[in-house]
Amino acid sequence: MGMEKLLVIGGVAAGSKTAAKARRENNNLDIEIVTDELLISYAGCGLPYYVGDVIKEEEELKIVDAASFEELRNIKVSLNTRALSVNPGKKEVRVLDKESGKESVKKYDTLVIATGASAKKPPIKGIEAGNILTLRTVEDSSVMKELAAKTKNAVVIGSGFIGVEVAENLVEMGIKTSLVEMAPQVLPGYDYDVSLFIKNHMEEKGLNVLVNSTVTEFKADKNGNVEKAVINGKEVPADHVVIAVGVKPNTDFLSGSGIELGDTGAVKVDENFRTSVEDIYAAGDCVESVNLITGKPAWVPLGSTANKMGRVLSANKYGKSSDRLAGVLCTMIVKVFDISAAKTWLTEKQALSEGYEIETVIVPGNDTAGYYPGFKEIITKLIVDKASRRVLGGQVFGWGVVDKPIDVLVTAITLKATVDDLAMLDLAYAPPFSNAMASTIASANTLKNKLEGKVAGIHPLEVFKNMDDLYLLDVRTDEEFEEWHIPGSVHIENINLKQRTGEIDRDKKVVVICKRGIRAYNMARLLMAEGFSDVCIMDGGIVYAEPLWNQLQIN
Amino acid sequence: MGMEKLLVIGGVAAGSKTAAKARRENNNLDIEIVTDELLISYAGCGLPYYVGDVIKEEEELKIVDAASFEELRNIKVSLNTRALSVNPGKKEVRVLDKESGKESVKKYDTLVIATGASAKKPPIKGIEAGNILTLRTVEDSSVMKELAAKTKNAVVIGSGFIGVEVAENLVEMGIKTSLVEMAPQVLPGYDYDVSLFIKNHMEEKGLNVLVNSTVTEFKADKNGNVEKAVINGKEVPADHVVIAVGVKPNTDFLSGSGIELGDTGAVKVDENFRTSVEDIYAAGDCVESVNLITGKPAWVPLGSTANKMGRVLSANKYGKSSDRLAGVLCTMIVKVFDISAAKTWLTEKQALSEGYEIETVIVPGNDTAGYYPGFKEIITKLIVDKASRRVLGGQVFGWGVVDKPIDVLVTAITLKATVDDLAMLDLAYAPPFSNAMASTIASANTLKNKLEGKVAGIHPLEVFKNMDDLYLLDVRTDEEFEEWHIPGSVHIENINLKQRTGEIDRDKKVVVICKRGIRAYNMARLLMAEGFSDVCIMDGGIVYAEPLWNQLQIN
Repeated sequence: MGMEKLLVIGGVAAGSKTAAKARRENNNLDIEIVTDELLISYAGCGLPYYVGDVIKEEEELKIVDAASFEELRNIKVSLNTRALSVNPGKKEVRVLDKESGKESVKKYDTLVIATGASAKKPPIKGIEAGNILTLRTVEDSSVMKELAAKTKNAVVIGSGFIGVEVAENLVEMGIKTSLVEMAPQVLPGYDYDVSLFIKNHMEEKGLNVLVNSTVTEFKADKNGNVEKAVINGKEVPADHVVIAVGVKPNTDFLSGSGIELGDTGAVKVDENFRTSVEDIYAAGDCVESVNLITGKPAWVPLGSTANKMGRVLSANKYGKSSDRLAGVLCTMIVKVFDISAAKTWLTEKQALSEGYEIETVIVPGNDTAGYYPGFKEIITKLIVDKASRRVLGGQVFGWGVVDKPIDVLVTAITLKATVDDLAMLDLAYAPPFSNAMASTIASANTLKNKLEGKVAGIHPLEVFKNMDDLYLLDVRTDEEFEEWHIPGSVHIENINLKQRTGEIDRDKKVVVICKRGIRAYNMARLLMAEGFSDVCIMDGGIVYAEPLWNQLQIN
Repeated sequence: MGMEKLLVIGGVAAGSKTAAKARRENNNLDIEIVTDELLISYAGCGLPYYVGDVIKEEEELKIVDAASFEELRNIKVSLNTRALSVNPGKKEVRVLDKESGKESVKKYDTLVIATGASAKKPPIKGIEAGNILTLRTVEDSSVMKELAAKTKNAVVIGSGFIGVEVAENLVEMGIKTSLVEMAPQVLPGYDYDVSLFIKNHMEEKGLNVLVNSTVTEFKADKNGNVEKAVINGKEVPADHVVIAVGVKPNTDFLSGSGIELGDTGAVKVDENFRTSVEDIYAAGDCVESVNLITGKPAWVPLGSTANKMGRVLSANKYGKSSDRLAGVLCTMIVKVFDISAAKTWLTEKQALSEGYEIETVIVPGNDTAGYYPGFKEIITKLIVDKASRRVLGGQVFGWGVVDKPIDVLVTAITLKATVDDLAMLDLAYAPPFSNAMASTIASANTLKNKLEGKVAGIHPLEVFKNMDDLYLLDVRTDEEFEEWHIPGSVHIENINLKQRTGEIDRDKKVVVICKRGIRAYNMARLLMAEGFSDVCIMDGGIVYAEPLWNQLQIN
């Protein structure tokens, strides 16, 4: 009788975590990792920064190498070995040694599928030309880094995280870069309005962003390397193309195994990461999750989730734990040149399509005390369910710290917080770190004001659509108004408003506007007290409206 | 019949917030703020940074000035006016105009006490000498800044936040500075072990820290200015002394009013911030709160809480809201030279004195991905109730970002999270912002391992106390071991341990030690699998043990 055999297919986040945790829980297992790649446990999320030379050495991307896995953990690692098929009846996996070309069979008592996901390649004419790359493995990034050093014109297709991060890194290297997105917006995981704000910044930093756009063909030079891309019917120079149109779960080799996949194409698992087939488990980017808010299946391939899955799988299977990963919030964060943008479920759009009756706010503010040197602007968008007052989602973006407020929202949403809970959090305050009233709390208070009918809000995009029916009242100073204002708005500075209410057209909805919303709120309250019946403030103030206006003029 | 009169005594955080919110809720109130000071609504927490010239201009500390309060909000502001007594029977307050010296009476329908707190002055002989200052108002900070420019030797008494921040700013200005603390530790709000770590850093940065120390006398020069301080019986040069031994609520003028104070000396209020006397409310630093975990009264004077109190008071009183500030967590954060230290209730010491049976961990780690340039070390201490698995408190400190993890803990604790909830949070991950397994999650997992008996831990301070009874097994590399190790520890590098277990003394408790704990954990599991029955790891690893060891050798 040999030892019980745990066979793990895949060796990046979930695979290596599953194996390492299993070893800690059980020293008597025979554990083997089989991976298609030349490395295990590497930093997949660091690849765009390695391409951009922010991370200098390939070595830095290697978290743990195969040798130390074998030596320290007594876990066998078979690199460069592709799983071809799974035979649950015989409890074996057919594998291909990619170097020798030989096939063989590996037995298992327990099998873990952690094959991750791979970059999709769209069926574009000429896509087989040279220098058209995807970015998923360390090898990919080395090739891309070498090419980038001599690239003049790059085209990045797809504006998800990888596309945006690669495009940023290429621009920072001085390469003329176009980012092409088929959808009407960049970063499709964010709300449209937020994506406009981000796109405006990308363009300010010199990235050529093309939404609603398609690449129909690549043309190669005489060496077979890409030379031109045909975008929206027009040829543009392109000596380096990055395909980043998304990923798909690596589950093709499971066909015929009886392992059930979800509608997302990823493997269906139960709470303990068991698949539909006995003794076969799955974890990581090839596995379906649950949307923590809606309870519906969701496929969110992320390294942070993959790590948790691997840990829960082995802790429950081998360590007598009963851990539960109830679901995910699709929390994401991306640096885009000088700004950062973070989000956690639900977006406004999702919340509406799920049938929630919601209230939202968009609140600009500083990340630290406004009198402490180095403070920067951030904008918080909150989405709250009107009936339960529960926070459903948030997006935080801007020049300052956004990972802190998004993580507060993640924690709050996971624990089913209401907007009232949010407003009362005893968050850490000292001038180098926060405002006395932290951005999250200020946003929650603004949302409470709206829920309680103390003030109504209107989104700048709604304002732009209905300019003729609205009375736009800008209450900022002369200087601010002259710098920029929404065309057609009337200027009465807040200090003069009480004396000049007679000038305001009472037949129209009055939209009070200031830089961020505080003065507008005070003045809206004043107008309401003066008997104006249809008053609201513009959400997000000029800070938010100006880039959105710029974008709508461009597009 | 005049308008209803709201009289607010005090105009910094709670006072100005109460008045501004009341105005937004009710335009027909007659509102007046009476304040002892020359400014309202200033940035009290910025004062140490103004002294240290991090904040350059006094103007920057002024958030809203009295004129704009009057002009924009129609709120009367009486500056430089001290409240002397309250007469609830007549509904009037006797006040002193400090400039003219004239007393008068102000009527109210509703009175709000928001007089804050002021610096305590201990009864030290000679304390009336010149250049012995406290720091509570903008005027204080201007005097201190001017003096600091010519100071050679400073003594700061008291190592709470203000004392530590002022001492840091003085050292950064090149002034030879001593920080004197009567208690056995600096920053008494933190656990003793954490305070040792912080004190070690203070000393590395050139601050002379004296704990268990008292100043018994000041000696003045012929001009009456302080020249020497007698510390622990020894004269030391001191041409600038800062008294920062804490604050006391400004409630003396309430004696005879019938307004009930708590044991803390601060005003007792109900959920709506009503005092024991009809039509009299109180908010801010002069008011008692509730410890959110224990439910016991607590006095935690902080600007962030004062703002919330003022808002809730006026929203509920004038705006038909039913907001609830259920309590506080005494969340605090302080920058100390190159490190930051944050905490939220309970400390380990408090939890034990409240009778909780607890488990703790101390987990060092990086604040962002270890392969992304600029990552920095932080250490997380978590305190969890064994029975309920609820998180009771946390302290996060080190060179990296600590405000984010502490705010996650604040949110989690407020919403009654267990350590299991904490481990599953879908926190934002991308290399520039976090690890795939965020520090908070890694700490929660370590704590879960302890709770589930997968590994035991021992605190470095316990190790140092019981060296003779322990077998200290350092599993780091040769290089690391040679750089520093706990005297008396045995060195077997992790890669060799499996072959060399025969060398280990099985009669002693084996304490496995590495830099941060990960290798130690793996090796402890290996030894347990090899039949060692009494194995544990040293909490916090060498990262934490080395500064603590240094401190204990010094003291």
